Amino acid sequence: MNNDVSLVSPLAPARFPSLPAIAGLEAAIGRAGFYKHERPDLLLMRAPPETQAAGVFTTNAVGSAPTDWCKRALAESKGRARGLLVNAGCANAFTGADGDAACKRSLEAAATRLGLTPDEMMAASTGVIGVVLDDSKIARALPAMETGPVDWLTAAQAIGTTDTFPKGAGAACEIGGTKINIAGIAKGSGMIAPDMATMLAFVFTDAALSAAALDTMLREECETSFNSITVDGDRSTNDCVLLFATGASKMPSIADAKDDRLSGFRASLSQVLADLAIQIVRDGEGATKLVTVSVSGAASHASAKKIARTICESPLVKTAIAGEDANWGRIVAAVGRADEPIVRKQLSVRFGDLWAAKNGAVAPDYNEAAMSAYMKRPELEIAVIVGPGEGRARMFTCDLTKRYIEINGDYRS
Amino acid sequence: MNNDVSLVSPLAPARFPSLPAIAGLEAAIGRAGFYKHERPDLLLMRAPPETQAAGVFTTNAVGSAPTDWCKRALAESKGRARGLLVNAGCANAFTGADGDAACKRSLEAAATRLGLTPDEMMAASTGVIGVVLDDSKIARALPAMETGPVDWLTAAQAIGTTDTFPKGAGAACEIGGTKINIAGIAKGSGMIAPDMATMLAFVFTDAALSAAALDTMLREECETSFNSITVDGDRSTNDCVLLFATGASKMPSIADAKDDRLSGFRASLSQVLADLAIQIVRDGEGATKLVTVSVSGAASHASAKKIARTICESPLVKTAIAGEDANWGRIVAAVGRADEPIVRKQLSVRFGDLWAAKNGAVAPDYNEAAMSAYMKRPELEIAVIVGPGEGRARMFTCDLTKRYIEINGDYRS
Repeated sequence: MNNDVSLVSPLAPARFPSLPAIAGLEAAIGRAGFYKHERPDLLLMRAPPETQAAGVFTTNAVGSAPTDWCKRALAESKGRARGLLVNAGCANAFTGADGDAACKRSLEAAATRLGLTPDEMMAASTGVIGVVLDDSKIARALPAMETGPVDWLTAAQAIGTTDTFPKGAGAACEIGGTKINIAGIAKGSGMIAPDMATMLAFVFTDAALSAAALDTMLREECETSFNSITVDGDRSTNDCVLLFATGASKMPSIADAKDDRLSGFRASLSQVLADLAIQIVRDGEGATKLVTVSVSGAASHASAKKIARTICESPLVKTAIAGEDANWGRIVAAVGRADEPIVRKQLSVRFGDLWAAKNGAVAPDYNEAAMSAYMKRPELEIAVIVGPGEGRARMFTCDLTKRYIEINGDYRS
Repeated sequence: MNNDVSLVSPLAPARFPSLPAIAGLEAAIGRAGFYKHERPDLLLMRAPPETQAAGVFTTNAVGSAPTDWCKRALAESKGRARGLLVNAGCANAFTGADGDAACKRSLEAAATRLGLTPDEMMAASTGVIGVVLDDSKIARALPAMETGPVDWLTAAQAIGTTDTFPKGAGAACEIGGTKINIAGIAKGSGMIAPDMATMLAFVFTDAALSAAALDTMLREECETSFNSITVDGDRSTNDCVLLFATGASKMPSIADAKDDRLSGFRASLSQVLADLAIQIVRDGEGATKLVTVSVSGAASHASAKKIARTICESPLVKTAIAGEDANWGRIVAAVGRADEPIVRKQLSVRFGDLWAAKNGAVAPDYNEAAMSAYMKRPELEIAVIVGPGEGRARMFTCDLTKRYIEINGDYRS
């Protein structure tokens, strides 16, 4: 976490939200010393005995020791996980067998501290890659880490890296008449200096849900939240979203994600994940604009998403937005190079309520002055119609500014 | 063409090369006035009657009127093309039927000026998109354009946009004992402000070759030249490479690209195309480093190329190079997210002769001081081994600097 107020993203929310309590959930923060400056860099959490968990992990083929651990542990335990150890400052990625061993030792120590077994532990690391985790630093920090009721703000701060503000989101809903809480924290701000680690999110609920139901819902909801954001297109080795359901609400457990009683919960979970995901974009490295790109009329959802992603990751589109230039031609060009079926004569582009292009040419009522005024807003909505199809998708991104180059290019200077 | 010497790319060649003559080829430059400032923006060329031609065009689905024209004309004439009209300042892309009509009228006027028919004409436009070509400006400029022997330097200058130096390359070789010349010019510097147009190249030879042979050779040689460069990943609507063979050398015509007598010609053509392609990267917007990325050990050439491209287009890799930071972790992460098969335990990264990563972890002899010294060079070679496969590919790119953001974001200010 960067604590220099002058460096806080101009898109940051006014304050950290008030998150609902998840009964029985405990946390402690600590300092292992992965950073030279004074800051917490460890988060330890313990959930009640009945907790079920699910995770979605990076598809980066290089991966990392902690994501490898979580995937294996969740598969072997069939979603029983009660402990979580997160460190910032070292990603423990691309570290081979030494990295795996260090991850395992750190989880053994954390499990002992929590009165759990290592196979009940989840791990997440974020920071420099290619450096083996120095688990002795974690072992030395653990004795001072006394878990208690969760302070979400300090937990969110402990897992941040180049983040300029802590990220949290929560919701309350009902399942079959029982009041249910959801609370989550995340970190992410592009890929971080000097490297990756990118995005982590941990979401907790007191609902009683099977690991299978959690897994299905998490995967589906990630599609429109964490899998619909892009700051720079650089998917990291350590990305990880974990969802824990403690069952503390005492509702009768639900095993099937398709259960009708879950409709309200699904909506709330969706909202929490989207909220966290968009907060990550708001903290995109160097970001001054939050941009929502909606593509409709595509051949399929996947096709719409690929087009949206091509727009969102175009350096030319992103620099034009940084320059407050309604350069719709660059959007059209990005659509054209997405290698997806489009109908050129129907291609239309709208900024907010203002049409820039309509049916394959500049809009007849194109108004440069109105467009320029719109582009000065901190939050922009770009809608693109690419044909007569039913496929639609929405992605979130930010602009590309000189500050991004500074953060990522001048790191060692 | 930008004529401010202080803005010339630091990677520019010392001088424009001396190019060989192509007998019977003529050119004229002119000013239609697509730019407010005084500069030539039109190039008109006429080749001898026996000329055969081939083209490779952008695969951007939005395309442009001139690329649509060339594709159709080449198909209908089976590669007979003698005339070329190029304008800078207006891409005539995303302009619908009006743009097509304007393109046709401009070619009719140019054909009349050259004593040719419109179906013998090729067209290329570069500049702003979404604006219909004002062909009346071209019609007014044509009478003053008297063709004569080709002055390659002024021709290259006339087709430039944000280019900071004119680009040309030539070679001499033999086919079956006959001396053959090749000469070409190109333009390109990322996508240009306010938009696209990107890359054009026109290559001429006095060899006698069938259009089919030209087409085969051009397609194959583009793969390792123009299709192996990336400045910002933003493929334009107007990209176009045209190859003309005049037959003026009086060699017996060769119809088959596989003819053994063409080996020397192929090598020279390859060299000319690669030279032009790399000059475009040297003029990449804001570039301070020319970077060659070689990937080997992949499952196939296509797989190696996708990995190389992912590295070359990673904003994090490019900003690290701008910052002279040997941030090999970002290269490893880019390899991991290319979604191609790799063997993590064999993944190795070399900068010049210096190993950064070897067999899935940091190199045992990693030397930070030597690495930092290497990164200060203007031309860098990055070699990546991703497994035991036979697939290999090489791509060329440049770094991503604040100047890129300035060029592309501050255009309207």
